[in-house]
Amino acid sequence: MKKVTIAGGGVLGTQIAFMNAYNGNDTTIWLRSEGSIGRMEPKMKWVHDAVMADLEAAKKNPALVPAGFKTDEPFDADQAIQKAEEALKAIKITLDLAEAAKDADVIIEAVSEDPQDKIEFYNKLKPNLEEKTLLLTNSSSMLPSAFAKYTGDPSRYLAMHFANHIWKENLVEIMSQPETSKEAFDEAVAYAHSIGMDPVELHKEKAGYLLNSMLIPFLMAAQDLYVTEVASPEDIDKAWKKGTGAPRGPFEILDIVGLPTARNINHQFVNIPDEVAPFHYKLIEKQLDKMIANGETFYGKKK
Amino acid sequence: MKKVTIAGGGVLGTQIAFMNAYNGNDTTIWLRSEGSIGRMEPKMKWVHDAVMADLEAAKKNPALVPAGFKTDEPFDADQAIQKAEEALKAIKITLDLAEAAKDADVIIEAVSEDPQDKIEFYNKLKPNLEEKTLLLTNSSSMLPSAFAKYTGDPSRYLAMHFANHIWKENLVEIMSQPETSKEAFDEAVAYAHSIGMDPVELHKEKAGYLLNSMLIPFLMAAQDLYVTEVASPEDIDKAWKKGTGAPRGPFEILDIVGLPTARNINHQFVNIPDEVAPFHYKLIEKQLDKMIANGETFYGKKK
Repeated sequence: MKKVTIAGGGVLGTQIAFMNAYNGNDTTIWLRSEGSIGRMEPKMKWVHDAVMADLEAAKKNPALVPAGFKTDEPFDADQAIQKAEEALKAIKITLDLAEAAKDADVIIEAVSEDPQDKIEFYNKLKPNLEEKTLLLTNSSSMLPSAFAKYTGDPSRYLAMHFANHIWKENLVEIMSQPETSKEAFDEAVAYAHSIGMDPVELHKEKAGYLLNSMLIPFLMAAQDLYVTEVASPEDIDKAWKKGTGAPRGPFEILDIVGLPTARNINHQFVNIPDEVAPFHYKLIEKQLDKMIANGETFYGKKK
Repeated sequence: MKKVTIAGGGVLGTQIAFMNAYNGNDTTIWLRSEGSIGRMEPKMKWVHDAVMADLEAAKKNPALVPAGFKTDEPFDADQAIQKAEEALKAIKITLDLAEAAKDADVIIEAVSEDPQDKIEFYNKLKPNLEEKTLLLTNSSSMLPSAFAKYTGDPSRYLAMHFANHIWKENLVEIMSQPETSKEAFDEAVAYAHSIGMDPVELHKEKAGYLLNSMLIPFLMAAQDLYVTEVASPEDIDKAWKKGTGAPRGPFEILDIVGLPTARNINHQFVNIPDEVAPFHYKLIEKQLDKMIANGETFYGKKK
């Protein structure tokens, strides 16, 4: 049993706290203000309801046991439901960072995806951070090296990126920054396993980690085929699914990602000169802007 | 029942001929020389054995009915086996192009992937080509516009790209060139359906069609992560499979594609200046060259 503190009670912070408590860790969520407590409550309720729905489904159909709940022992749905209810009740909430950091084995920074908020948190944590504590950031879009100097001990600081619905989509991408020690990296991998996650290891920093580093050029190539009027989203998706056996085509994935997010990712590339750009980023932006303005998705007027 | 001629008796030519004969078309393979007949025989035997093995498997397990054999009627394995045996016997072979082209509804050019061989074929075909004939090229790496002027009637000339094992991987990519008529395009789509294929439509020329246009940047991104020492092929594959639900990761796909083919594709990009290249093509080439020289694949010393 470890003491684990999650900084931030957002969509992922609440899910990470839940999986820690479910796996027997002494789990605390640190929040910045009273207001944050109120904002967290509906997120925690959503985690409860989503987990319970998945466990009830697994009770009826054992093929549906969420990956994060699988262990070497046979799955017992009733026991899992009881454990999940208890776990959600066992999560502690505090506004006191000194208390949250005291004796912590692991602290996971899951504050808002704003560099100033992250730096403010690390500065506040620094005087309270103990030598033994492993400090992890869940940032999806920023590199840990950008924050290492604010943490106090860069050798025990690295990234651990969770997917949404972590109890079933239990891939975590563990990424070191140049100053991370091998020991801290290995500890992070073992810790990920201990809370039901299935980690992959990035031994160098890479924006987008592994999954998005592959998804982004793939989704760009697909959108390029559409905006240059080669083929329809339906036929492009069909070619991908039939050709590779994948369950979803690129435009189905784009609808799940959300067009505003797709638009923001594409926007990073829009100033690459046309002569050297591998894809028609400007045309893609134009297409996405038009669809967003009209409230459209690729497979339906509104989601 | 259509008269269909396939020019070329290679790996795909034989499969295309088989699916035409299986679906009741009067099917002829045209070959350039006596020597070509001898070279074709083992390929035709391979088609026979592979199709029969798949049909025997489908007889035991109806979930395994190859996609190209599915119709609106319930699948009858014994009937399909008999039909397949008859189809293979019904395929005619000729060295006489005038005879092969006479009264043909469809001619599919599946000669070797060498532009000179293709031009030579089109020049020889031209005086024999009838007005009604739809002329299709199965070229995977060349654009039909490069050959349109040699065909006699560019308005009835376009590309139809088959995948390997066409009786089960029945995706075909149908691609027009600038002079293709809408009528010819629509005929090609209907013809594809009539021989058990499931077509996608490309209304503009695009090197790589739809599938390879997406696969190539995706496979490059994956190889880039490996050659820059971010992660292992195993972890990169795991991230892709867990993150997207795909049955195979990029390095598993590269082993199927074959490293020499992957190397040739990458080689096209190797002279893009480093400052603007989206991936480390030179490092990728070095890695593939080393593995090819050692007879290695990503998942085993030798396949």
